[in-house]
Amino acid sequence: MEHSFLAYLRGRCRKLAQVTVGIGDDASVLEPATGQQLACVDQIIDGVDFLSDEHSLTDVGYKSVAINLSDIAAMGGRPTSILVTLSLPSQNSTQVAGAVYEGILEAAEEFNLSIAGGDISTYDGPLAVSITLLGSVDRDQAFLRSGAKEGDAIMVSGAVGGSLRGRHLRPIPRLDLAQQLRQSVEVTSAIDISDGLSLDLDRLCAASGVGAELDTEKIPVHQDAELLSESSGRTPFQHAWSDGEDFELLVTMSQKDADSLAAQELDAPLTQIGNIVGRTGLWQRQQGKLKRLSPQGYIHESS
Amino acid sequence: MEHSFLAYLRGRCRKLAQVTVGIGDDASVLEPATGQQLACVDQIIDGVDFLSDEHSLTDVGYKSVAINLSDIAAMGGRPTSILVTLSLPSQNSTQVAGAVYEGILEAAEEFNLSIAGGDISTYDGPLAVSITLLGSVDRDQAFLRSGAKEGDAIMVSGAVGGSLRGRHLRPIPRLDLAQQLRQSVEVTSAIDISDGLSLDLDRLCAASGVGAELDTEKIPVHQDAELLSESSGRTPFQHAWSDGEDFELLVTMSQKDADSLAAQELDAPLTQIGNIVGRTGLWQRQQGKLKRLSPQGYIHESS
Repeated sequence: MEHSFLAYLRGRCRKLAQVTVGIGDDASVLEPATGQQLACVDQIIDGVDFLSDEHSLTDVGYKSVAINLSDIAAMGGRPTSILVTLSLPSQNSTQVAGAVYEGILEAAEEFNLSIAGGDISTYDGPLAVSITLLGSVDRDQAFLRSGAKEGDAIMVSGAVGGSLRGRHLRPIPRLDLAQQLRQSVEVTSAIDISDGLSLDLDRLCAASGVGAELDTEKIPVHQDAELLSESSGRTPFQHAWSDGEDFELLVTMSQKDADSLAAQELDAPLTQIGNIVGRTGLWQRQQGKLKRLSPQGYIHESS
Repeated sequence: MEHSFLAYLRGRCRKLAQVTVGIGDDASVLEPATGQQLACVDQIIDGVDFLSDEHSLTDVGYKSVAINLSDIAAMGGRPTSILVTLSLPSQNSTQVAGAVYEGILEAAEEFNLSIAGGDISTYDGPLAVSITLLGSVDRDQAFLRSGAKEGDAIMVSGAVGGSLRGRHLRPIPRLDLAQQLRQSVEVTSAIDISDGLSLDLDRLCAASGVGAELDTEKIPVHQDAELLSESSGRTPFQHAWSDGEDFELLVTMSQKDADSLAAQELDAPLTQIGNIVGRTGLWQRQQGKLKRLSPQGYIHESS
């Protein structure tokens, strides 16, 4: 399969941003990153991150790229190219590869990415898609998890919770918002919400050596969290607090910078949900007293 | 498992070439490539590319990096960093990840690579290791498959055949040889032998729109091909002609350049096995007549 499929791919990739030498040589030749280079890799696997008998394979392909784009957004960077590894169950492998690649190519066109390489294997296992994403960021300007400072405002983009109703397959990477923020304010730290608002905020705080005091009523609860709540036995807030795969951004900045954003039209809603405090952990003020909140979310399978 | 394993990895990676921001943020921040950037990805899967009940998992980890280094060597480039995707069977996943990473880190130290990212999943499937390798090459100086010209000498590094006896797990990427060649001669085309000498030479010729006239007796047959021949029912030559995973280089250059190399001490033996001809296909001259040779090797599983 690989050779005829590569010929098909080569044709489809002509529309995309160019690489000097693309698919078909031992490696791709690309222009070097401007500023500094960003790189990340994330894979999704049937039965773990999606269900091939429920989800469209084109959506799966789109998701595999979008979750990596979300990581580049969380670094304040610009994506440039991807490398694609497909592990295909041997049955119907060409059809499966074609359907997954439709979604990958859709995301590549939408975000102006070149396909800088790939590998396809058929094997006795479930469909797995691994994407390496390359990008660039101005020198020393990457948003890190580790820069949050006491007093900083904590902001979240969009609304969270209930992404399992379908949004998790077509997340909107907050690349444009990240660029807007870079131009308007000094982002002190950032992370994308992949495993749950509270869990990822806890990670950001841990990396920065700080804690967070939250106004939990301000957390923007997605309509999907309300809808899921009707059947899940959990409250909409619980979904917003701990559901994974929102792929929204959590960012911190000085309170002054946060206030200055109120007057700006942003590419996505940005809501302040609390402030960074010196005391580690997540906290909520109730009747003047601090109550500790427990971070919850998707912890990767242990063994 | 992921978080404690990442802590272990972070410790182990301290010895390696540095990235500005490494494992533990949303993406890595790296220095941009000098010249142009090279990128490639190759995965190996239990049951397809190795057998976990026969092969050491540390060797498997080493191989996953080395096969990608061989691709960068075939481009005449220098490797800089890798991203690692592990798909782990759920049983003993931490031990398996640790053993595979031993080999990956060994290769990283040997070739001065930084680990610029990774993703680890456990799932209901066989061990799979996918490595993305980034590197650099001087602008417009990459060795391509497509530049072979009529009259060029065809050279192969090392000796080929029988790698399945064990060499395929610990291939020697011909990075230093490629750099020596770049400094001494004008390499007109190059490919690494992953699927078999004849098959990969045929690909190089197809990419260049030329053919090859071979002096088959000059093909350097590895001792492993002789040894494998004792039990395989195939001749040592057949092994040398069609066995995959030699990870030697096939390069072309003018006959004059090839002759000039005779006086040089090279990092690995380099043997001329024929010349490029205008007529497409692989050929052998016998009693003054051209006889067509059939390329053979490992064709990726079709379905």
